[in-house]
Amino acid sequence: MHSQVSDLIELLIQEEHSCESIGKAMRELTPDDVALALESIPLAQRTQAWQSIKQANRLDILVEMRGESRQLLLRELDDADIERLFADAEAEDLLEIADSLPDHLVDLALSQMDSKQREYYQQGIVYDDELVGRWMDHDLLIISQSARVSEAMRLLKKETPNYTQMIYLVNRTGRWVGCVSFDKLFKAQSHEPVSSLMDEDCPFILDTTNLIKAAEQLERSGLSALPVVNEHQVLLGRLHAGLALESLRLENEAQQMSTAGLNEESDLFAPVRRSAGTRGIWLGINLLTAFLASSFIGLFEATLQQVVALAVLMPIVASMGGIAGSQTLTLIVRGLALGQITRSNFKSLLLKELKVGGLNGILWAIVIGLITLWWFDNPMLGIVIGLAIIINIIMAAFSGVIIPVLLDTFKIDPALSGSVILTTVTDIAGFVAFLGLGTLLLL
Amino acid sequence: MHSQVSDLIELLIQEEHSCESIGKAMRELTPDDVALALESIPLAQRTQAWQSIKQANRLDILVEMRGESRQLLLRELDDADIERLFADAEAEDLLEIADSLPDHLVDLALSQMDSKQREYYQQGIVYDDELVGRWMDHDLLIISQSARVSEAMRLLKKETPNYTQMIYLVNRTGRWVGCVSFDKLFKAQSHEPVSSLMDEDCPFILDTTNLIKAAEQLERSGLSALPVVNEHQVLLGRLHAGLALESLRLENEAQQMSTAGLNEESDLFAPVRRSAGTRGIWLGINLLTAFLASSFIGLFEATLQQVVALAVLMPIVASMGGIAGSQTLTLIVRGLALGQITRSNFKSLLLKELKVGGLNGILWAIVIGLITLWWFDNPMLGIVIGLAIIINIIMAAFSGVIIPVLLDTFKIDPALSGSVILTTVTDIAGFVAFLGLGTLLLL
Repeated sequence: MHSQVSDLIELLIQEEHSCESIGKAMRELTPDDVALALESIPLAQRTQAWQSIKQANRLDILVEMRGESRQLLLRELDDADIERLFADAEAEDLLEIADSLPDHLVDLALSQMDSKQREYYQQGIVYDDELVGRWMDHDLLIISQSARVSEAMRLLKKETPNYTQMIYLVNRTGRWVGCVSFDKLFKAQSHEPVSSLMDEDCPFILDTTNLIKAAEQLERSGLSALPVVNEHQVLLGRLHAGLALESLRLENEAQQMSTAGLNEESDLFAPVRRSAGTRGIWLGINLLTAFLASSFIGLFEATLQQVVALAVLMPIVASMGGIAGSQTLTLIVRGLALGQITRSNFKSLLLKELKVGGLNGILWAIVIGLITLWWFDNPMLGIVIGLAIIINIIMAAFSGVIIPVLLDTFKIDPALSGSVILTTVTDIAGFVAFLGLGTLLLL
Repeated sequence: MHSQVSDLIELLIQEEHSCESIGKAMRELTPDDVALALESIPLAQRTQAWQSIKQANRLDILVEMRGESRQLLLRELDDADIERLFADAEAEDLLEIADSLPDHLVDLALSQMDSKQREYYQQGIVYDDELVGRWMDHDLLIISQSARVSEAMRLLKKETPNYTQMIYLVNRTGRWVGCVSFDKLFKAQSHEPVSSLMDEDCPFILDTTNLIKAAEQLERSGLSALPVVNEHQVLLGRLHAGLALESLRLENEAQQMSTAGLNEESDLFAPVRRSAGTRGIWLGINLLTAFLASSFIGLFEATLQQVVALAVLMPIVASMGGIAGSQTLTLIVRGLALGQITRSNFKSLLLKELKVGGLNGILWAIVIGLITLWWFDNPMLGIVIGLAIIINIIMAAFSGVIIPVLLDTFKIDPALSGSVILTTVTDIAGFVAFLGLGTLLLL
């Protein structure tokens, strides 16, 4: 799979390429592979490559592209191109792309859609991007709760969508009442009412559930799809395993990217100015925290001038605190996400982390103290750095527990902002402890 | 769900609790919820809580626990307890736990298993932890390629495991030949041979596929399960959506934990010494890189003594480089994981990142230079830090592309080691550029 994509990348990037060979290479790949290949080449070649894609395949490929890549490509197309693109779009396609399109083009696409699809689109667009309601599937087997097994079997013979092992029963007002598994249908007599086979404990999810939480519920259920209902229990659609797998895969990617302040929709070849701009925000936040830490170093200028070894060693104290703190932070952030951390175990947890910090602090204080002694031949400097390490690692353990718990209390995602705040604290604590002790003990 | 778990945590952590109320709270929860609650309380209470769990539920709960938590609990049990635990264990349970058990207890558990389960265990244990072969499911519908539809329908009526919408066809030697969807069976006549309904392009996966890659293949297939075969095409089992969802969820967690050098199997309340030990490795690696960076600062002791402002500002230069570099690194690591980065686009990519680095470098050099000028009232110092920022951010862009690509060439996972190497480079480059320019221009 990978090698076919890289072959296509190779072909597309060449200055001179025949449209035939590209067409051939593309035919062997799925839309998401072609989308990936397009995202892997510089913008100029990308627009050119787009032209060699058959009209019929373009929409599928566009839907699979990342947000930024899609936006960059759509910018190059005129309204007529876009109109052709949406000639037979489904609700799902437009829901994916709508955010990258100006309103008049969304309206244009909607006007070409059949009424069923338009309804699905309007139903989905009211939900936020990360909610089940936006992305649920409408291809499901529904039957009235008053039907008989024979009718259900007829439905099965007509069509069974993927990820389907159940028929959902609704009442006259469209409310979901339960489900019947194929299993039970196969064994039943054709004149039996389906309601007698119904499982009442059948799990379902609310339309306003977060996709990641919903994927977890699907995993727990042991089923390949779950019905999605609204607050009035009306059956709206379903969440199937394909969508759940996709959500988790993208969440994985989003998490990785967010550690560097990046968006998972980022394009590998976004225009230079645009990239510089989006990355600048994170650099700016970092600059604020860096200047804050520096201002604390500035308090000790006189000391630094007299004992220049302090300047040489101070990054060590700060960085050891940063690492120790982020270990505690990571453990606590996971605990918070899983619902493991409560009022009742908070104190024990804090105490345990302080003990680990204390033990590691003493251990590394000895190691670093001895290395410093050997390097600078100054026992008092060794003691100063050792004490500073102990203070900062304990401080790091304390902050690593307190910061995410506080952020969580204020409903701020601790995974995102926690580590920025934590390293600022450990930087400042490290510099102040080390330079402060240096001022007291070395001057 | 979360609130029920935290209620149980609350109950278990109290000094005085009635076994009845705990029993009641546990009955309402699934084994993984109980496992989570147990992992959320200190070790002393945990062993006590274990006693109030019914024998019949213990194994299920133990299987759901994290590796370290499980090990810590198993240490407290004697051999008779463990023997009782495995009274009716399945292969899957033992595969999950085997790594935490001494060999003689694994043998004991195996001796109690029925022959089918023992065979599955022995088949699974030869595969690494992250391969499909270890965890595949053996509950699948198989029929001979020479069978008729009526036989297939009889099989369906007997049992349909979850995640099943297909019957797999094998030849006489057990080799997988293709699949028939329920869909087609329903529509067929009972005397037709199943082979006439067979889909030959039915996707399958190899037993030696990585679980995460396999989950991706399952997602692409649009099916709720895929057959797993060995290199000789012999049908061994299947990978279903439940397992794929679990793998992605755990991978997500593992990735988050690994950014702090932690293992996803870590226990929130692991004994202090043990925690300090496992975290020490990461602290040790960090210490090496921190001393390395410090040794470069040490080269400029004379300069620092004369211009102490350099000591105050030097962490800023290093950290801006670190942030800019990790942004590039993260983008490239993702690109490598997706197979987006090839020989043919590598140069364009490097060039683009250098341009982004150059632009951001100049922008932030001006900002930082002006702030420095205002703070220290020294224009030359502003110029020195501005130039150092430009050099370090460009260096960071270069390293952010080169380091992961090099690591990947040597088959080292760039996601893990990349950022440690990168920040070491940007620290050193930052200190050397800033203090070096300071020596040249300020003395």
